[in-house]
Amino acid sequence: MQLRIPGPTPIPDEILQAMTTQMINHRGPQFAEMIHKATDILKTMFQTKGDVFLLTCSGTGGMEASVVNTLSPGDKVLVVANGAFGDRFAAIAEIFGAQVERLSFEWGTAVDPQEVRRALSQDASIKAVLVTHNETSTGVTNDLEAISAVVREYEKLLIVDAISSLGCIDLPTDEWGCDVVITGSQKGWMAPPGLAMVSVSERAWQAQAQAKMPKYYWDFAKAKSFLEKGQTPWTPAVSTVYALDTALELFQREGLKNIVARHARVGAKARAEVKSLGLSLFPDDSCASNTVTAVQVPEGLDSKKLLKILREEYDTVLAGGQQRLDGKIFRIGHLGYVTEKDIDAVIEALKAALPQAGFSV
Amino acid sequence: MQLRIPGPTPIPDEILQAMTTQMINHRGPQFAEMIHKATDILKTMFQTKGDVFLLTCSGTGGMEASVVNTLSPGDKVLVVANGAFGDRFAAIAEIFGAQVERLSFEWGTAVDPQEVRRALSQDASIKAVLVTHNETSTGVTNDLEAISAVVREYEKLLIVDAISSLGCIDLPTDEWGCDVVITGSQKGWMAPPGLAMVSVSERAWQAQAQAKMPKYYWDFAKAKSFLEKGQTPWTPAVSTVYALDTALELFQREGLKNIVARHARVGAKARAEVKSLGLSLFPDDSCASNTVTAVQVPEGLDSKKLLKILREEYDTVLAGGQQRLDGKIFRIGHLGYVTEKDIDAVIEALKAALPQAGFSV
Repeated sequence: MQLRIPGPTPIPDEILQAMTTQMINHRGPQFAEMIHKATDILKTMFQTKGDVFLLTCSGTGGMEASVVNTLSPGDKVLVVANGAFGDRFAAIAEIFGAQVERLSFEWGTAVDPQEVRRALSQDASIKAVLVTHNETSTGVTNDLEAISAVVREYEKLLIVDAISSLGCIDLPTDEWGCDVVITGSQKGWMAPPGLAMVSVSERAWQAQAQAKMPKYYWDFAKAKSFLEKGQTPWTPAVSTVYALDTALELFQREGLKNIVARHARVGAKARAEVKSLGLSLFPDDSCASNTVTAVQVPEGLDSKKLLKILREEYDTVLAGGQQRLDGKIFRIGHLGYVTEKDIDAVIEALKAALPQAGFSV
Repeated sequence: MQLRIPGPTPIPDEILQAMTTQMINHRGPQFAEMIHKATDILKTMFQTKGDVFLLTCSGTGGMEASVVNTLSPGDKVLVVANGAFGDRFAAIAEIFGAQVERLSFEWGTAVDPQEVRRALSQDASIKAVLVTHNETSTGVTNDLEAISAVVREYEKLLIVDAISSLGCIDLPTDEWGCDVVITGSQKGWMAPPGLAMVSVSERAWQAQAQAKMPKYYWDFAKAKSFLEKGQTPWTPAVSTVYALDTALELFQREGLKNIVARHARVGAKARAEVKSLGLSLFPDDSCASNTVTAVQVPEGLDSKKLLKILREEYDTVLAGGQQRLDGKIFRIGHLGYVTEKDIDAVIEALKAALPQAGFSV
């Protein structure tokens, strides 16, 4: 099967095999060795000297953890949103009592760093900025380098949803001054879902010490004190750690620069091939993501039918649009275990299926 | 290796193999079929006609979810605690703003249902009772049937940590009127950690509709609406669902009654064999658990040394004591994939290792 959604992503065989490893004591020396090794490699992939923790949850759990560890009810936060996952960040912050100021951009466009500057210059009471690096719902990568420069200028806390970017698209956490960065095992990491990985900067720790939102399961301070013993506070998803541990060896072998370059090549190819079919990208080329390509549904094309035909007749699984983009776009995931050949296979399937769903190639 | 801690527990080979299944779309028809099937079997194991959800987290996440879904800040709750996990329940409720009244029993003893009655009769403002069915930290199983009868008499909400009991020790959720029951995939379920399973009664839903503690990731209402589509709100731990799905087939094949009887036999054997070594149980026989046996560390025995020798020389992994029981007890886990033969192997290892650690058998 060609599973080409933006996560879960296909898993190399040796990583699947790693999961047949029998259980071990999650408070024993073998687990300690594994989590220390995985954490060390993750730090090089996050490009951080800060802390990195494994949380047993999906990416959304990691987002919630980043909010409740750094903020107090009543804190004003600027949520920079240009898609469903930016909105999710705002919803989480609001539910936990933050005063959320939304800076929204049209779905399919990128965040304008100058607008972030304007928002921060107009309101000194903003404590933190929450931003999506790669907006999976629209296939847009925001210019996090420029956004983070603005946030640093105003000395705000910067919390980054990098769930579908980290390990695929360059994100030098420390260099750009990102305080909490979140990713998920089932995205670029070639592992199954079940682990969120988060980095925590010195500034984030200072915020953590003051933060009053209620937290128990997500408490970064507990994660830190247990990691010092090679443990997690609560029983971790051991099999998923086996998988991630093996995946990180492959990451180390290929090297982050090569991985980022591969995703750039594959992303560029996906966009070029989609256009060659006579289809249009949903976002502008200038901000189109290297991990997920969002394609506009042209007149005449029944996208639900297309996805069904692709799945049932061509063994190819693509993703539809979320929320207001339901039926308006479809999405091709190309992150993690992916090469140009996988794009060829998807395009071949699309060539065959598109006419069956009402669109003449 | 003989992994005999109270979770993670050993996994049968066919369940390990299930995890080599390639990723699928967690919003596609194949996943929907799998989660519906798993949920249906789980309902028979929970002995409930209520809702059952899979949450991607450890058991502690399930405990947090049960609190934030049913309570509001300021609500008075009675936490009935006789060990580390009862204390954990109290800590979670307190952190999220509940007014916690603790009814504590000495570690190693069972909860006295009459004391629960007294507490409830003295304070009509108590809204909910939080109780541990099987206290993993002390090897005690509480008389949940009697406790639940009292809670029903006073018409309070009953939230049960059954993390290390459900699927091993009889717990008829509906018959006993338990409103939220929590278990974890790595305990009796023969699957890896990463999933908590929770049941939600009609009364719990009424509480949920009123509950004001902040929740996003844990929101049962979202879990319900997504399960209707055969999905989870957030990307689930797909590989762990594969494992659980396979494990539940084995559960169905063996039958709950047989499984409960097997744990009773294995538990009785563990207790008898431990005593035959000249050691004493930590709890009284009358409340000793069928899933974990807590053994008192006699004078002269260095329990840390014992565990190390067992691990390094006899390939047998037992658990120490937690918190105030550190060095005072050690624990043998016998839940999930376990038969009498596994107890024989543990006892043989103990026979050899005990003298090396200062205790003459």
